[in-house]
Amino acid sequence: MHPRQSPTIDAVARAAGVSKTTVSHVLSRKRPVSQTTRNNVLTVMAEMGFEPNYFAQALSADRSFAIALIVQDLTNPYYPLLGRGLERAVAEAGYVVMLFDGAAQAEATEMAVRVALQRRVDGIVLAATVSEVSAAELRRAGVALAVVGSNPTLAEFDSVSADDERLAADAVGLLLGAGHRRVATIAGPANANPGGRRLRGYREALRAAGVSPELVMVATGDWTREGGEAAMASLLDRSPRPTAVFCANDLMAIGALDAALARGLRAPDDLAIVGVDDIDAAGLVRPSLTTVRIPSLEIGRTAGALLLNRLAHGGGAAVRHVLIQHSLVIRQST
Amino acid sequence: MHPRQSPTIDAVARAAGVSKTTVSHVLSRKRPVSQTTRNNVLTVMAEMGFEPNYFAQALSADRSFAIALIVQDLTNPYYPLLGRGLERAVAEAGYVVMLFDGAAQAEATEMAVRVALQRRVDGIVLAATVSEVSAAELRRAGVALAVVGSNPTLAEFDSVSADDERLAADAVGLLLGAGHRRVATIAGPANANPGGRRLRGYREALRAAGVSPELVMVATGDWTREGGEAAMASLLDRSPRPTAVFCANDLMAIGALDAALARGLRAPDDLAIVGVDDIDAAGLVRPSLTTVRIPSLEIGRTAGALLLNRLAHGGGAAVRHVLIQHSLVIRQST
Repeated sequence: MHPRQSPTIDAVARAAGVSKTTVSHVLSRKRPVSQTTRNNVLTVMAEMGFEPNYFAQALSADRSFAIALIVQDLTNPYYPLLGRGLERAVAEAGYVVMLFDGAAQAEATEMAVRVALQRRVDGIVLAATVSEVSAAELRRAGVALAVVGSNPTLAEFDSVSADDERLAADAVGLLLGAGHRRVATIAGPANANPGGRRLRGYREALRAAGVSPELVMVATGDWTREGGEAAMASLLDRSPRPTAVFCANDLMAIGALDAALARGLRAPDDLAIVGVDDIDAAGLVRPSLTTVRIPSLEIGRTAGALLLNRLAHGGGAAVRHVLIQHSLVIRQST
Repeated sequence: MHPRQSPTIDAVARAAGVSKTTVSHVLSRKRPVSQTTRNNVLTVMAEMGFEPNYFAQALSADRSFAIALIVQDLTNPYYPLLGRGLERAVAEAGYVVMLFDGAAQAEATEMAVRVALQRRVDGIVLAATVSEVSAAELRRAGVALAVVGSNPTLAEFDSVSADDERLAADAVGLLLGAGHRRVATIAGPANANPGGRRLRGYREALRAAGVSPELVMVATGDWTREGGEAAMASLLDRSPRPTAVFCANDLMAIGALDAALARGLRAPDDLAIVGVDDIDAAGLVRPSLTTVRIPSLEIGRTAGALLLNRLAHGGGAAVRHVLIQHSLVIRQST
């Protein structure tokens, strides 16, 4: 499928007006080359039909110049922006992004980790929960890894996350500050990242405010709109019912709004609701959703920067856990 | 970064209870192996720490077993589902998906095509508009290509798309059937795919219904919510203003709703609005959006199937242009 004949590196260097060494560096990526020079050389290569043998390069360098992105659910709008941030961060350094979606099922994640390692990716951004089996494989492989979210079982790897306990406490604080005492939560799966931490932030905020432990009301969803709707229905069956709900992500909060509306309850008068993420839909629903904004583009970019740093400095670099700043976006649902 | 020692193929075959040939076929992908057997062999390999040298395999086969997905804008919810459909279709055959986002800028698309070819991907799914330069490079490379949308300049390649003229005519027909005569359109860029075809469908539907040519009102957006808002503002400046608007995608339709609301006009009483895609947000906005549903998961899956077929049968296979069925989803905005 690649039938053309390729000109020499010498010819490319002459045409681009750079040294042969610079062309080699663009190809090997072993030395930094400015983005402008790099683009110029690549453009000349394309015009001349130059075709380096990528596989031979990769074999000799034992590097694929590929980063695997493993995400829980690409249709959750949080992840496309994360992917964009990652791609922008690593593309400049000559890396491509391999996409593994649908890691909501444990089996799919295990297979994604396996395939990524088999393809000898140079790094993995893991934005999904992994099993012990996968965690062990990742450790054994010694691959560069950036974990999105704070995952205690992978604490020896670089990570980037929102401050999940703190953001949950801030959201609950907003509800408590408005006078609510019967504040429930729709949590993500507690064994999964970041469900556990946001749940802990919720509990801690109630405790710190002196709210009686009997008023702690927890329902669990699966991060989807449908899951939030079901969880909200179960909360509304309680008597007395909550007057405010902190939902661990926006999709579940939107499902919660659906469930409330189905019982004739309106936000914010009958029920105040807060989500997390600030996906586009949060501003589109009526009432629009008060939420905690997490800048997913920046999280993706930071994950890329962590990997590039790790790849440049090897296993010796100190492990970094980066926390990304969140903010409260006040809309109509509170 | 890959320090472990690998067991032999013989040892893997014994442990998996299959022949050495089967293990080779799983690795080379040159012969089909059932999904169950394949997963079993891969699991055993992972457990034993077997590490085939992927680069050496790729070099000898001159195949990367990677498909590039080049998309216009991954944050448009149409594309994540398309990506999911593609990944599911090709993963079973042992291919990974390389993601290139942000091809809304012509320069980014050219670079994506270039990098994908340089990486010697086996196939490309092109869900973005490409320049003549990129089109020429794709032709010269002889790479397997599946075009999403109907692109006349790439008509010699396989494609999958909605029937864009027909769906536009159906949407406009809905508005005409409700008695509207002043039906405007917010089109996508006319030189870009599928903007031109949907615009033609709009014009054709008005002509067929005997609507006077002076009542053809076209504003152009850039597929984004902001672009739709600006286009709608320009339409509402006309006198007399349109009573109905066909928007070439949902994001622009949602922007159009914003612009109408900003002038105190409410859908559907003051203005009827129809979009295209049926993204999640179409059901979330108030009034909820009547739209043409395009099953993007199926489009992605079909693109993958076209590539697999092309890779199996080579350049000799007949070129296929697959049309995917659309449907009208009637909600509150009409």
